[in-house]
Amino acid sequence: MPILVMKFGGTSVATLDRIRRAAKRVGVEVAKGYDVIVIVSAMSGKTNELVGWVGETSPLYDAREYDAVVSSGENVTAGLMALTLQEMDVPARSWQGWQVPVQTTSAHSAARIEDIPPQNINAKFAEGMKVAVVAGFQGVSPEGRITTLGRGGSDTTAVAFAAAFEAERCDIYTDVDGVYTTDPRVSAKARKLDKIAFEEMLELASLGAKVLQTRSVELAMRYKVKLRVLSSFEEQSDDAGTLVCDEEEIMESNVVAGVAFSRDEAKMTLVSVADRPGIAAAIFGALSDGGVNVDMIVQNISEEGRTDMTWSCPVDQVARAEKAMAEAKADGTINFHDLIADKDVAKVSVVGIGMRSHTGVAAKMFDVLSNEGINIQVITTSEIKISVLINRKYMELAVQALHDAFELDKAA
Amino acid sequence: MPILVMKFGGTSVATLDRIRRAAKRVGVEVAKGYDVIVIVSAMSGKTNELVGWVGETSPLYDAREYDAVVSSGENVTAGLMALTLQEMDVPARSWQGWQVPVQTTSAHSAARIEDIPPQNINAKFAEGMKVAVVAGFQGVSPEGRITTLGRGGSDTTAVAFAAAFEAERCDIYTDVDGVYTTDPRVSAKARKLDKIAFEEMLELASLGAKVLQTRSVELAMRYKVKLRVLSSFEEQSDDAGTLVCDEEEIMESNVVAGVAFSRDEAKMTLVSVADRPGIAAAIFGALSDGGVNVDMIVQNISEEGRTDMTWSCPVDQVARAEKAMAEAKADGTINFHDLIADKDVAKVSVVGIGMRSHTGVAAKMFDVLSNEGINIQVITTSEIKISVLINRKYMELAVQALHDAFELDKAA
Repeated sequence: MPILVMKFGGTSVATLDRIRRAAKRVGVEVAKGYDVIVIVSAMSGKTNELVGWVGETSPLYDAREYDAVVSSGENVTAGLMALTLQEMDVPARSWQGWQVPVQTTSAHSAARIEDIPPQNINAKFAEGMKVAVVAGFQGVSPEGRITTLGRGGSDTTAVAFAAAFEAERCDIYTDVDGVYTTDPRVSAKARKLDKIAFEEMLELASLGAKVLQTRSVELAMRYKVKLRVLSSFEEQSDDAGTLVCDEEEIMESNVVAGVAFSRDEAKMTLVSVADRPGIAAAIFGALSDGGVNVDMIVQNISEEGRTDMTWSCPVDQVARAEKAMAEAKADGTINFHDLIADKDVAKVSVVGIGMRSHTGVAAKMFDVLSNEGINIQVITTSEIKISVLINRKYMELAVQALHDAFELDKAA
Repeated sequence: MPILVMKFGGTSVATLDRIRRAAKRVGVEVAKGYDVIVIVSAMSGKTNELVGWVGETSPLYDAREYDAVVSSGENVTAGLMALTLQEMDVPARSWQGWQVPVQTTSAHSAARIEDIPPQNINAKFAEGMKVAVVAGFQGVSPEGRITTLGRGGSDTTAVAFAAAFEAERCDIYTDVDGVYTTDPRVSAKARKLDKIAFEEMLELASLGAKVLQTRSVELAMRYKVKLRVLSSFEEQSDDAGTLVCDEEEIMESNVVAGVAFSRDEAKMTLVSVADRPGIAAAIFGALSDGGVNVDMIVQNISEEGRTDMTWSCPVDQVARAEKAMAEAKADGTINFHDLIADKDVAKVSVVGIGMRSHTGVAAKMFDVLSNEGINIQVITTSEIKISVLINRKYMELAVQALHDAFELDKAA
């Protein structure tokens, strides 16, 4: 039998009624002849409740106990989903991570899947089981303790199962009906994409389009797992949602696939740093040790042996960055005159594999922004992406103008 | 190190504050030099929530999935308790049933513990762990699936661990401060017992004194585990609560240890049954098949080949009994004129190992009830117990009168 992996997120299994609706979708695929592996998240709100209890009990908690507590939400959904399927006369059973087993590293709360031996589940498929309902987000360490994969880990679980079982496809059911050219709340002209390349999805995921967890897309790209994102709240046809796939499978596409944005950015500038070899390593090493996720970096031209260093980071990490720099100054690692934080910026990016073969995308982007009177503060580029940092109040305007200019409302 | 088992029920771990209070009790025992095995229930209300979800999903549920869902509550408490102990600098870790492993039969939702190999936990004690926090109520079947032991199973888990680890004692922390001569809500003169024999506790437990689960007392008796019942809501001295122990350890005791009662009984009478060999087997076989738990049984003297058969059962099983009898009549198994149900009765019992060597307890009991004008409807006796069925409205009066007459307010 061909195997299909279907993943249902927290909102898709938030109530017994929603679990029933999800189970019906599974039943449709079973009727088509698939053996199905269903990956479930915890009912929405449950994981937050458990995380809250752990935090309240122990601010600097033992991650092994955190994992033991927090993984329980998925176990509940897995059992309830299996029961729901049985009620529909679909032979199903639940599997917890250790039962499969989903073998992970011992990096508790951020474990990586090392292997998923398919024998146990395949033996049950051979006996007539049609659906294996697997608790997402969790695994078991070499020491036999429960691990979790970090937030959003159920997407990763789903893709890893699709790879291990050579599934025909991995369908991710969520509360949106696919991947859009941009956030429909920002541009009414946003259009759902039928297909998007892994590389594009990766850039969009890491830029803040919260449809899929970045790691799951990386994993899908590595193992060539066809990923489909679709809504669990709508009737589905076979070509519903958005297929995330190899770029070879996309016949025609726009040069730019989408416009992404990230609202809560900050721009920080170290003013008049002594410019010497190793200074960048010193600054960004200290920031990294301080838990700051630096995104864009710009270094000004050096004058009289001193320079300015600018970076962007999430706005809620500004305090950490200030602490790290103050400490580095105090212990003599870095010498600078001032540290300026601008908490009022946003990042806007255009993404598309078409940029590889089409020139002029960057020029057009800068032109569009300039015509709207938007000042560009920082620019970074990759092979398939151009990002700019701008004043946050222009963010919506920039997204809409770029969406129009690249004609993203029209299919290729 | 000597080992102590401490069990905390649902109300004792209902909130993070209560978990903290329980952890402090554990810390006190660790400071005395014990290695401690803590058995925890789910936070009160959690198991009922999970059971409700299962029932709503699937009225005739797969017990394997029920167990997978319902066992998750204990896992949460175990992790939170381990974290709380760690915060108090007590080296602790949590264990789920399959990690110990608690090996059980495959009788899901009513599994029996077959073995608890102590190696894994003892290895951690040898490494310096002071407390193993074990999720109660659960185990793992030979097929590697999660099992539960049935309601109240955490008491059984605790006693089984005490036996497997040859613990010095098994302390059951609950919301009452011990075992009383009768329910203090019925008689203000009820007195807490310092010690009670296993046999007496068994009779009291099965008669409705809901302090300890019957199976846990049976297990403690078989393996000579010293059981102590005490309150988790009071400061404790070393001799707090009630010790349930071998009768040899009780130097002096009253002839009667306690007066138990069961409020929700019904008396049913099959009128004019054809009296032939095998008729009792036919009636009680049909009732048993119908899910009726018959307690007392009385058969009247036979007249002209017909007799009356009377039994008692929980009042909420009357409808089942009526259905079973109607079906047996319809298919010709049993022939009778009428079935009368009296839903207005209660059972009152006096219990005490002293009855073995003292005569006259029954006579005194009947005399006391007669003096109060209470009519006895059915009588049953065992070696250490006399039970009577009476009109429910006299139940409190009967309990108080018996408590007075046997001077249970005074220690031996």
